[in-house]
Amino acid sequence: MAPTQKCHGKECPAPGPVPNDVIRIYSMRFCPFAQRTRLVLTAKGVKHEIININLKDKPDWFLEKNPFGTVPVLETSSGQVIYESPITCEYLDEVYPEKKLLPSDPFERAQQKMLLEIYSKVIPYFYKISMGKKRGEDVSAAEVEFTEKLSPLNEILAKKKTKYFGGDSVTMIDYLIWPWFERAEMMNVKHCLANTPELRKWIERMFEDPVVKATMFSTKDHKVFFDSYMDGKPNYDHGL
Amino acid sequence: MAPTQKCHGKECPAPGPVPNDVIRIYSMRFCPFAQRTRLVLTAKGVKHEIININLKDKPDWFLEKNPFGTVPVLETSSGQVIYESPITCEYLDEVYPEKKLLPSDPFERAQQKMLLEIYSKVIPYFYKISMGKKRGEDVSAAEVEFTEKLSPLNEILAKKKTKYFGGDSVTMIDYLIWPWFERAEMMNVKHCLANTPELRKWIERMFEDPVVKATMFSTKDHKVFFDSYMDGKPNYDHGL
Repeated sequence: MAPTQKCHGKECPAPGPVPNDVIRIYSMRFCPFAQRTRLVLTAKGVKHEIININLKDKPDWFLEKNPFGTVPVLETSSGQVIYESPITCEYLDEVYPEKKLLPSDPFERAQQKMLLEIYSKVIPYFYKISMGKKRGEDVSAAEVEFTEKLSPLNEILAKKKTKYFGGDSVTMIDYLIWPWFERAEMMNVKHCLANTPELRKWIERMFEDPVVKATMFSTKDHKVFFDSYMDGKPNYDHGL
Repeated sequence: MAPTQKCHGKECPAPGPVPNDVIRIYSMRFCPFAQRTRLVLTAKGVKHEIININLKDKPDWFLEKNPFGTVPVLETSSGQVIYESPITCEYLDEVYPEKKLLPSDPFERAQQKMLLEIYSKVIPYFYKISMGKKRGEDVSAAEVEFTEKLSPLNEILAKKKTKYFGGDSVTMIDYLIWPWFERAEMMNVKHCLANTPELRKWIERMFEDPVVKATMFSTKDHKVFFDSYMDGKPNYDHGL
């Protein structure tokens, strides 16, 4: 894996072409969406290089690659560009057959995609609560809704009686869901997990996953970044 | 194909199990999202039965199948349930190998998914404009934005120089994009296509596609339904 680099802002020249034997990821070190793709790259052992982007001061050459201006973005040595985190993850799983993360059964694959749809409606609550609290707002209504929305996740695990969402080993859906739970303590939402014991056990297990360990930041580091972000001056290079 | 049935409301008993040799789709005859799945079922020649749902008065047994309460929903004879239109379409393409609609190349598949993401941000404008006009609101700002958002679709066709979005034959992405353009005249948005000649040609070609012809309604019928919907009394069974 390439050494992690400081972020590229508007003034930074475009990086050269992607070398033949690697895939490039445009990322931001603390971005949970980009972490999804970093988890998949790491889990599958895909040789990759990382170009971190200053999301507050995006280079034009980056915006040309992805009209949405978001990370993650993948770029291949033949110049193919892929964006949107679930699309990048599925692409990697299809192109690199080692350690398949998506199930081979079409219905199980559909189940993972349906769960991702359900979860995508949970994600905004992590921000509503953590940012609202930081601004001193009353977030109790959001906390109630968040707790309700977490309950189906707990039920799936309880019903399946498996260690992870796709079975007894980690699969794609676990990595797609994970990054926000890594930040749960930093985001001040852990108390909303009081009634979801199976989900709490899943979190504990995920923290032990070697791939998670290889891509994660500590709660302390996440907090430094989050505070700087909330102050309007995101410290993308914290710790470098 | 099963004969089209009148819609099932809250009082209707749950249908029996799905027969062995068919797949069931829970649909609403005028729903563009459900039409995506009907297009794929028809294109692939998948034997299916249709249960139409009264979306204003949903049966409890339907809500148990899909927590979002939306159509389309697929149900197999073994009781597997799949919802969310792109997920149902991809599932069908994977399970029924006849006439593959998604490209076999992972990057081309990723391209179709990225285009779907772009298009999903276009869809709300069909409603903003048509519903706004119906309510007598000024929709000129929405029309400008809609025109801007259609431009990338036109550019893709112009750049690729192909008849359809995935090449010179109809593929999955065409069917996923299509249903709203079938309604463009009824929705009073055709003037926004003035600067997108390639997109207009694509629409003409799609109107000639036999699968589109087999699943479509006329502008007049779409209008009867839309007007009834805007009056708060959607006529789900119009024409039956």
